[in-house]
Amino acid sequence: MGRYAIGVDFGTLSARALVVDVETGRELGGAVMDYPHGVLQECLPDGVPLPHGWALQHPGDYLECLRRVVPEALAQAGVNAADVVGLGIDCTASTSLPILADGTPLCFLPEYKNHPYAYAMLWKHHGAQAQAGRMTELAQSRKEPFLARYGGRISSEWMLPKLLQVLEEAPEIYERADRFVEAGDWIVSQITRSEARSAGIAGYKALWSPREGYPSQEYLAALHPRFATVAKDKLPGQPLPLGALAGTVQPETAAWLGLCPGTAVATANIDAHVSVPVAGAPRAGELMMIMGTSTCHILLANAERAVPGMCGVVDGGAAPGFLAYEAGQSCVGDLLGWFVDHCLSAGCARQAKEEGKNAHEYLTARAAGLRAGESGLIALDWWNGNRSVLVDARLTGLILGMTLRTRPEEIYRALIEATAFGTRTIVEAFEGSGLPVHTLFACGGIAHKNPLMLQIYADVLGREIRVARTRQAGALGSAMFGAVAAGTARGGYDTITQAATAMGGLLDTVYRPNPAEAATYQKLYALYTALHDQFGRDAHSPMRALRDIQSESLR
Amino acid sequence: MGRYAIGVDFGTLSARALVVDVETGRELGGAVMDYPHGVLQECLPDGVPLPHGWALQHPGDYLECLRRVVPEALAQAGVNAADVVGLGIDCTASTSLPILADGTPLCFLPEYKNHPYAYAMLWKHHGAQAQAGRMTELAQSRKEPFLARYGGRISSEWMLPKLLQVLEEAPEIYERADRFVEAGDWIVSQITRSEARSAGIAGYKALWSPREGYPSQEYLAALHPRFATVAKDKLPGQPLPLGALAGTVQPETAAWLGLCPGTAVATANIDAHVSVPVAGAPRAGELMMIMGTSTCHILLANAERAVPGMCGVVDGGAAPGFLAYEAGQSCVGDLLGWFVDHCLSAGCARQAKEEGKNAHEYLTARAAGLRAGESGLIALDWWNGNRSVLVDARLTGLILGMTLRTRPEEIYRALIEATAFGTRTIVEAFEGSGLPVHTLFACGGIAHKNPLMLQIYADVLGREIRVARTRQAGALGSAMFGAVAAGTARGGYDTITQAATAMGGLLDTVYRPNPAEAATYQKLYALYTALHDQFGRDAHSPMRALRDIQSESLR
Repeated sequence: MGRYAIGVDFGTLSARALVVDVETGRELGGAVMDYPHGVLQECLPDGVPLPHGWALQHPGDYLECLRRVVPEALAQAGVNAADVVGLGIDCTASTSLPILADGTPLCFLPEYKNHPYAYAMLWKHHGAQAQAGRMTELAQSRKEPFLARYGGRISSEWMLPKLLQVLEEAPEIYERADRFVEAGDWIVSQITRSEARSAGIAGYKALWSPREGYPSQEYLAALHPRFATVAKDKLPGQPLPLGALAGTVQPETAAWLGLCPGTAVATANIDAHVSVPVAGAPRAGELMMIMGTSTCHILLANAERAVPGMCGVVDGGAAPGFLAYEAGQSCVGDLLGWFVDHCLSAGCARQAKEEGKNAHEYLTARAAGLRAGESGLIALDWWNGNRSVLVDARLTGLILGMTLRTRPEEIYRALIEATAFGTRTIVEAFEGSGLPVHTLFACGGIAHKNPLMLQIYADVLGREIRVARTRQAGALGSAMFGAVAAGTARGGYDTITQAATAMGGLLDTVYRPNPAEAATYQKLYALYTALHDQFGRDAHSPMRALRDIQSESLR
Repeated sequence: MGRYAIGVDFGTLSARALVVDVETGRELGGAVMDYPHGVLQECLPDGVPLPHGWALQHPGDYLECLRRVVPEALAQAGVNAADVVGLGIDCTASTSLPILADGTPLCFLPEYKNHPYAYAMLWKHHGAQAQAGRMTELAQSRKEPFLARYGGRISSEWMLPKLLQVLEEAPEIYERADRFVEAGDWIVSQITRSEARSAGIAGYKALWSPREGYPSQEYLAALHPRFATVAKDKLPGQPLPLGALAGTVQPETAAWLGLCPGTAVATANIDAHVSVPVAGAPRAGELMMIMGTSTCHILLANAERAVPGMCGVVDGGAAPGFLAYEAGQSCVGDLLGWFVDHCLSAGCARQAKEEGKNAHEYLTARAAGLRAGESGLIALDWWNGNRSVLVDARLTGLILGMTLRTRPEEIYRALIEATAFGTRTIVEAFEGSGLPVHTLFACGGIAHKNPLMLQIYADVLGREIRVARTRQAGALGSAMFGAVAAGTARGGYDTITQAATAMGGLLDTVYRPNPAEAATYQKLYALYTALHDQFGRDAHSPMRALRDIQSESLR
């Protein structure tokens, strides 16, 4: 009779459950379900229109998915609920929602069904840009100590700007809400019937730290008088470390979840950060690249340093006992997707079909036949702005070197190379700040689907890259934290290191730099850096000027 | 009973005849035929392989086409040969070939059938790069006065580098050839059975000028001892002005040509330059843009000035009595063709088909819905290098400003805009050199097919643009010169001004700058100029570095 843990990964569009053998990490069964309402960007379910830049979710979708995917995954795995020792969940963040004291989301109330501010504001809701800008400026002028932990900038995607937006634009919702919670914490609370905030989510998304707590009342009051007590009033309770026991499956939830009452449930995690242990026992100097539509880079370290352009450093933010630095590239898979959707010629599409390949496979196969530098192309990978190290959402893409002989696969490869150069820029920023990067790991869809991309990364970075064995890094990571929440006594593990040692692992393939390619990329990277600094750092960059002209033209 | 002139336009791939009413310019009939051998780039007709960069033609193709298109055009027009007063031809240049004293091309001789150097070297034959480079360097070091007339650089596409290539690489052909002739002059000689070189072609393509003749024997001797007498030995005879009577149709050619013996034949012209009078009587300050795969700009002026990046200034080079300055953009229609061939998505292609449009029409219709600056894109139009004003074939293309929302029609429009900015750079170079540009005319395929492009040019240039009425500018121009060769006494005209006044003309449409668009383009042009200078003038431009890396990678 085995011991199993379940991880549930709540992404932007769907939730996915995975049943994992606690001793071996073997993945025995899984299930996935799209959110019935998806992302609400145009209007609410009943048609109330939403402003440009908004992105909401219906919290009922999380429960509906949970109710479906956990039993299905168990059935597919052929595992008895009684053998499940722990459950962990991860979720996009900051995806926050207003709730009543009993946990009911305000949007569940008939009187708020039509009220946009009563729904969950998804991570990519950009309605709080103004608030985020004011928060950054005020923190700078007050020299708030927390700001250094976030690379000097507060993102509109984080929790406090979103709450400030609600307070300023819909005070009735702010006042009516007994609390605001992260979606991940809320899902956990719906299972355990008790509340437990995650220190990982609060650390990256709510400016909280174990030592200093939330920003000071003085700072918050200066933003809005009613905001002074936001932490005490709306975010009560001490966040718990990752892997802590948030509670257990309650009798009233056990039935619909298909689990036994008393099963351990871990504190929630962020969908990217939860992947860090899937490669194995975490160590300082390890950088995990979670590669998908965008790439998130998490570096584990023992020392706290200010790193230009990082999104945040949180003590215990990915694994207890380590400082976890987050950096990001806002457009990786999305960039290749854009190319295929909008620039892939009909001729290429036809040939791909004839060869029985999808567009990415076709282009990758062609691009693999090229040597570094052969195309004469170079690109800046800023189709969705630059998160790290420049932290400038208004930056845009560039391609240089086209001739009449330039072919689609050459452009495709140049775009891959540009994201690799972007990653190298991030790695060098860490090392230049005194944080050594010893080991590179990759996980996420691209890491498994595109060997050429990994090889180019190895050549550009001049380092070996290893890929996590799992194709479900988020759900496996969550399952590991579920096992840790159970603890050894209840059939799990006492630490994430133990869990990751047993349940994590790498593919046999190692991407090693090819010396000739690496030498050419050394030269190309120098060009990339020159273009990066010229277009990205110069206040008079043509990119900024173009954006200004564009804004005027659209007025 | 009318009076008619015939023009025959020998392009890169085909020859086209046009029968024109001498009094009104009305185009009564035409015919076109592709060259049976096309462009020989891979191998000779019998399979002898050609080196990379070579481009030859079989001169027999010119005669075969002539024999077909002239009678067909006459028949289509319903015109009697007896009513044809004159014939003019134009041809690509420098397209030169070695011939015997009696005019027989060397490649017609069985012993030279397999010899690449015995064929016509097409304008875009790039086998003489090394010779052109040496000729430029020597002219610079000797401070040869002719060099200033050619913008400081001798192109490998011109006649003397090609002849030097033959001399150095195939001396047996050089020695065996009694003469070398331009294809246009050779075609004329085949009709008139006498030789007459064109001052226009010799001026632009053989470093000849009415006042100074060919380069000095000292200069030529320093290139190669046997080259000292190239002008005297291989290019005898005084070139005749445009519109001069080169000869008449001879009894032995009248039959196969379908014309009457004695019909006047004009000196040959260059296929681009011949278009200048089609808009009407030539005047100083008029700039004609011949817009096709590339764009050729011919400015008429009264003064001789050194203009940066011009391809040549020739007294009487487009119309007797005017200095004609040539500038060029090496990639215009080709750039849009590249985009459609290699970057037009399958989705766009499908939609275009559904709307019953070709790809260009579809993209143009979409792009026309955008305002200047709206896309946030800007491009450098150097997919085939930059001819004017930078004269650097190694420069490459650039696009800047892409986001995940960028759509194909936005890129298409940005490419059009880039060519417009390139044209404005040329116009400003003329004006900055003291040569006023009063009036802008356009002709060629694009001028008729793409109204959006013309409107963007008007907006970018901040000037009105008018389009020549004819869709066959080359052939109409040739017909005009044919009428001038006949002279008033024989039913034609005594001057090109008279001929152009009667036979030329403009469409009613005038493209006038839209003030709002022009104001936005003023700002975008400043960005274009900054990028142009940074990437095009800086010796350490990333474009040059990329080319170096590319060359190493391909080694």
